[in-house]
Amino acid sequence: LLKDENSEAALRLFPSDAIARAKLLLKNIGSIGAYSHSQGIPHIRENVAKFIEERDGHAADPSKIYLTQGASAGVQLTLQMIVEHSKVGIMIPIPQYPLYTATLAVLDANPVPYYLDEAKGWGLTTEELARSLSDAKRRGIETRALVIINPGNPTGQVLSEENMRDIIRFCKDNKIILLADEVYQTNIYLPKERPFHSFKKVLKSMGPEFDGFELISYHSISKGMIGECGRRGGYFECEGLDESVLEQIYKISSISLCPNVQGQIMVDLMVNPPKKGDPSFEQYKKEYDDIYYSLIKRAHKLENTFNSLEGCTCNSADGAMYLFPQIRLPKKAIEAARAAGKEPDQFYCLAMLESTGVCMVAGSGFGQVEGTAHFRSTFLPQPELFDEFCGGIQKFHASFMDKYRD
Amino acid sequence: LLKDENSEAALRLFPSDAIARAKLLLKNIGSIGAYSHSQGIPHIRENVAKFIEERDGHAADPSKIYLTQGASAGVQLTLQMIVEHSKVGIMIPIPQYPLYTATLAVLDANPVPYYLDEAKGWGLTTEELARSLSDAKRRGIETRALVIINPGNPTGQVLSEENMRDIIRFCKDNKIILLADEVYQTNIYLPKERPFHSFKKVLKSMGPEFDGFELISYHSISKGMIGECGRRGGYFECEGLDESVLEQIYKISSISLCPNVQGQIMVDLMVNPPKKGDPSFEQYKKEYDDIYYSLIKRAHKLENTFNSLEGCTCNSADGAMYLFPQIRLPKKAIEAARAAGKEPDQFYCLAMLESTGVCMVAGSGFGQVEGTAHFRSTFLPQPELFDEFCGGIQKFHASFMDKYRD
Repeated sequence: LLKDENSEAALRLFPSDAIARAKLLLKNIGSIGAYSHSQGIPHIRENVAKFIEERDGHAADPSKIYLTQGASAGVQLTLQMIVEHSKVGIMIPIPQYPLYTATLAVLDANPVPYYLDEAKGWGLTTEELARSLSDAKRRGIETRALVIINPGNPTGQVLSEENMRDIIRFCKDNKIILLADEVYQTNIYLPKERPFHSFKKVLKSMGPEFDGFELISYHSISKGMIGECGRRGGYFECEGLDESVLEQIYKISSISLCPNVQGQIMVDLMVNPPKKGDPSFEQYKKEYDDIYYSLIKRAHKLENTFNSLEGCTCNSADGAMYLFPQIRLPKKAIEAARAAGKEPDQFYCLAMLESTGVCMVAGSGFGQVEGTAHFRSTFLPQPELFDEFCGGIQKFHASFMDKYRD
Repeated sequence: LLKDENSEAALRLFPSDAIARAKLLLKNIGSIGAYSHSQGIPHIRENVAKFIEERDGHAADPSKIYLTQGASAGVQLTLQMIVEHSKVGIMIPIPQYPLYTATLAVLDANPVPYYLDEAKGWGLTTEELARSLSDAKRRGIETRALVIINPGNPTGQVLSEENMRDIIRFCKDNKIILLADEVYQTNIYLPKERPFHSFKKVLKSMGPEFDGFELISYHSISKGMIGECGRRGGYFECEGLDESVLEQIYKISSISLCPNVQGQIMVDLMVNPPKKGDPSFEQYKKEYDDIYYSLIKRAHKLENTFNSLEGCTCNSADGAMYLFPQIRLPKKAIEAARAAGKEPDQFYCLAMLESTGVCMVAGSGFGQVEGTAHFRSTFLPQPELFDEFCGGIQKFHASFMDKYRD
């Protein structure tokens, strides 16, 4: 990696385990500037498999793991493969992260919306899934896959194991591939009441009648406590897919040659972080924990802030980086919005932006039950600014309501 | 960038201009770990525009430049945008780099093949372009764009300015967007006889009647003398496209959030390399020139090697990293190939691989005039192994011909 005369200088800049890891990676990769295997560097896929095994307690196979340039790239590639013609439908949650509607629009496929149940903490009911599927059937749409975002974006819920089993059964009964967007799996803020379970783990606990169940799970370096989103790295794991389908995924991946090697290396760092005893462990653990405990604190503080607002309710901050409160706007505000040619939720968010500088995304960007108004907020503002951030929202909301209260 | 106490150590590892550049980039980017502008970091797009201006002597606009994860990603994005329905056709050269046929297959669009003229040094004739276009029309295909790879892959030719003007006129007359794959623009091995001209420059020299001509040009960090292909960086520049089309390109780019930031930084290094007087200039220039002059030498040596083989002819090594010689195989060899269930060119290449360990790609992978046989070879084996490489090919070919000569 480094010329001998430079080793001493390098050691002053980097911990010895970081240098050892760089050497090991370089040995396995050969050259950081060259194309890698189109499916991702084998050494790194092996580490991903170990990470999954440790997380789930079930075997993972590196040959069924594909490294990607972030989860978005993985979602786009697999949806492209699943969408055979313009009558294909993909079940997506409402509210949803717009990656899904945008990708389906580009592919000329049909979103088959199912609504998350706000009254049940943004959980799913199989009744609603069945309703959504049969509505699509009536429209002549062939539903091939169901997207779940867990922990939720924009809704921030973490699904219960029981709910996940229901979903898996629903997919099995209807011969639907399950696409599990699990990029927020380490952003868990009620770890005892609402722990994260991967769909892979829950599936594997359901016994041999679910062998061959088709599941694709996505993960990313962009979230969690590392949040290295600009580096574009991630992976997806395929479970139960036919060998010939895996070959086609590899073929499509190879059109783009390979995911960027630095992003692949970041995946290695994510799935195989410094271990106790490593020189960089203490610093890693401290930075990780500082971010994690601060996010927990901010998540719950923001949830409480939203629930303190007149006419506003917010489900619990289970996970991810978002809350999606519902606001019940006064008639006067709705009329003012219509007069300004805006949706009521957009009108509210624009007023907040102008008054406080805080940018919330209106619920209509994610989808919501007709006649309701929501917005998505992150809880990412820096800890030292967070009280001011929450105070600003409260102050704005009070004055907005004073202006428009019926 | 670095803590003060680390500056001294850093200076022992990196030249001061490299550190200054890193600081400037960091200042303009903000964070290397965060998402950048979906179109690419503005500071880097400005440097790309300066590079294009300096290359062509014509203005370039950073707002019409899109940074990408390599040229492949740019080609896929723009073809996706152009292919509106399954009757759309895209003219592609034969032989061609398989990115184009693969992407058109995924998009369910129609390749409209035109043949490069081997007898004219793999140049294009407008007669052949017209033939190709009217054939497509007869098949009910709406041809929307024409792909040119210049310098050529797999053919290694560099087009003359006159030939380029003909192509531009053809596209204008037929209302066809020109897609110029110019990723090998610095790999030029006969710089006096066959200099590289960008299509942008040639277009701009053709006068005001060509205002509004639609051209998209692609470039990449994967080729040239840097060859940092695993880092996935590149850009495309749009010329003459309507503002509303540019907005759609931006929208589609934003689905994937942003190109990886490290790849963008490599684009900055490519378009704005160390300048004379910079501490790292001498090393940069030496490494660059060593690679360049060695590539020139290897290109011409390999061309001569192929032309020395019985029944083999090879056009001149103008540019790119490839040669695409034609081999006239004896009947006996063709019969042996058929008996083995292989195409003759594949049979030849497999025999070479088994006998020498040298991997050539059979011409049928790129397309070729029916009944002819070619193969693609790079001239990338290391200089110290190159004589052995060429000698091995000659020895293999002689014994192959001895075995199969009619």
